[in-house]
Amino acid sequence: MASAVEWVAVDWGTSNLRAWGIDAAGEIQFSRSSPDGMSRLSREQYPSVLTGLLTEVHEPVDVLICGMAGARQGWLEAPYLDAPADLRTLSRGAVSPEMPGNQFAPAILPGVCQRDVGAEDVMRGEETQLLGLSALIPGFSGLVIMPGTHSKWAMLDGTTLSRFSSAMTGEIFELLRVHSVLRHSFNGELEGEERDIGFDAGLALGLDKPERLTATLFKVRAGALLSGRSPAWCAGFLSGLLIGAEIGGQRDWIGSAEIPLIGSVGLCSLYQGALEKLGAKSRIVDATDATLAGLKAARQG
Amino acid sequence: MASAVEWVAVDWGTSNLRAWGIDAAGEIQFSRSSPDGMSRLSREQYPSVLTGLLTEVHEPVDVLICGMAGARQGWLEAPYLDAPADLRTLSRGAVSPEMPGNQFAPAILPGVCQRDVGAEDVMRGEETQLLGLSALIPGFSGLVIMPGTHSKWAMLDGTTLSRFSSAMTGEIFELLRVHSVLRHSFNGELEGEERDIGFDAGLALGLDKPERLTATLFKVRAGALLSGRSPAWCAGFLSGLLIGAEIGGQRDWIGSAEIPLIGSVGLCSLYQGALEKLGAKSRIVDATDATLAGLKAARQG
Repeated sequence: MASAVEWVAVDWGTSNLRAWGIDAAGEIQFSRSSPDGMSRLSREQYPSVLTGLLTEVHEPVDVLICGMAGARQGWLEAPYLDAPADLRTLSRGAVSPEMPGNQFAPAILPGVCQRDVGAEDVMRGEETQLLGLSALIPGFSGLVIMPGTHSKWAMLDGTTLSRFSSAMTGEIFELLRVHSVLRHSFNGELEGEERDIGFDAGLALGLDKPERLTATLFKVRAGALLSGRSPAWCAGFLSGLLIGAEIGGQRDWIGSAEIPLIGSVGLCSLYQGALEKLGAKSRIVDATDATLAGLKAARQG
Repeated sequence: MASAVEWVAVDWGTSNLRAWGIDAAGEIQFSRSSPDGMSRLSREQYPSVLTGLLTEVHEPVDVLICGMAGARQGWLEAPYLDAPADLRTLSRGAVSPEMPGNQFAPAILPGVCQRDVGAEDVMRGEETQLLGLSALIPGFSGLVIMPGTHSKWAMLDGTTLSRFSSAMTGEIFELLRVHSVLRHSFNGELEGEERDIGFDAGLALGLDKPERLTATLFKVRAGALLSGRSPAWCAGFLSGLLIGAEIGGQRDWIGSAEIPLIGSVGLCSLYQGALEKLGAKSRIVDATDATLAGLKAARQG
C-alpha cells in the first residue's frame, strides 16, 4: 500500500498533528495523527517527529504542510500573504525547512494576514481550508464561519479571501470556565437537557445584547446563586452567551448566501442553530475534508 | 487612645480585611489591615483573626462588618436584601456570628441582590459604599459606577438602590493577561507612554464597537504580530478595550447627573477619561471614605 504514496498532506496545528499519505490518483492510502503540535515542540524536534510519523513511507515524497508549523515559533516561519489574497497563490509563498536525508521534501504553506490598522488579524491553517472550500463548492461567494478556539469569519469570493476577523470565543469560554469566579458554578454534571435550556437562554441574550457581554457574563454566577441554576445550565448559558455575542455583534457580515460552517460537527451545530435564529441558512462542511481539499488544491496550484 | 474607641468598622472583602476604631465623636482612632480576606479563611478562623487584629481594644465594643464575610462561603451568611432596596434598612438585615468571650459583638451587614430573571445580580460591600455615598452627597440621584474586578453600575435615588449590574471587566483583563494567547504580547515593560497611547486606541474601539468585543480582543495579538506593538501598548489597548466596551455597552444608563466613581484613584481616572469621551461628567469618590461613611450610616440606621 505505502508504495503507492506520491505525497504526504500534513495539518500541523498548535496542539495536534495529522498526516495523510496520498497516491497518484489522489486517494488517501493512510492517515496518522499525533499530539505533537507546535506548542510542545522545539524547532529541532520537527524532523524527527515527522520521520517517526511516516515510518511506512519508503520512497522519496513531497510533504505539504499547513498550519502553525509555519509560525514564527514553529518549524520555519512562512511569512503571511496579505489579504485580500488569491488563495491559489498559497504554494508560491511556501518555505522549505531543512530536513536530514533525502526521503522527505517538506514545504510549509503561509498563513494570511490583514494589516489594516484597527483590523489587524492573522490566520494559519484556515486559509488552506478556505482554499479547499473553494474547490468543494466551486464559485462560492460569501461569508464562511469557522467556529473554534479563535473563530474565523471570512469573506470568500471564489478563491479570493477578501477580509476576515477572529473572535476569541472558544478561548474565553475555557478561561472563564476554568479560572474565573464563574468556575464555582460548574461543579458537577455539565451535560444533559439543562445544558440545552441554558444554551438557549444565553444565546438569546448574547444575540440580543452583544454589547453587554462583560455584564451578561456575570449572570452565570448570579443565576447560580439566586435562581439555583444547575452546573449544566450554567455551562450551556455561558456557551450560548459567547456564541450569541460573537454572531450578534457581527451580523452585518451575514449576507444572503448559505453560510458554510467549517469545524467540529458538535460546535458547528450550535452555530447553525444560532444562525437560524437570525433567519440565516448554513451548512456544515467537514473540517478534515476542507483541509485535505485545500492541501490538494495548493499542491496543484 | 484605644480607650476612646466606641465601635469598630470592618470591611471584610475577598482578599483583604480592614478595620477602623471609631470614637464617640465619630473620629477614627486607629486603622488596621490584613491580607486575611474571605478567600483564605475557613469559617472557624474568623474570630481569632478579628481578635488578633484588635489587640489594642480592651473594652467591649460593637464590630460592624460589611463585605464578603457575609457570603455563603464566609463567616456567617447574611441573606441579601432585594433590590429595589432602601439602604437605610441594611442594619436590620445584619446577622450576628458567634464570638468567644464578651469583648466583641460582631454584626455582618447583608449584600443586595436583584432577582429578575435575566437580570440576576449580586453585590456585597458595594451596597455599604452606596449608603455612604448617599451620606456624602445628600439627595444624589443617578448613576454610580464602581470600577473594579467586577465593576458595579448602580442607579441610586437618595438612599434607594433601584437597580444595578456587574461587569466582569477587571477579572477578564487579568484572565486574558495571564492565561490567554494574548499573554505572549505582554512580555516586557508594561508601563510608560506607550501604554497611554494603546489605552486610547483600545478605548476608542471599545466605546465604538462594544458588540464586537470577542473579535476586537484578538487585535491585541494581531497588533503585536503585525504592527510591532510593544507590551506596554498591548496592555493599555486591552485595558482600554475592556473599559470602553463596559461603558459603551451600557451608555443608556448614563443620565445628566455627574457620575460618582468609587474605587481606586488610578482606575477611576481611566473611567473618568473614558466617560469624558461620551461627554459625561464624573467625580472620583475615595473608596475608603465611602465605606466608612456607609458603615457609620448603617450603625445609625
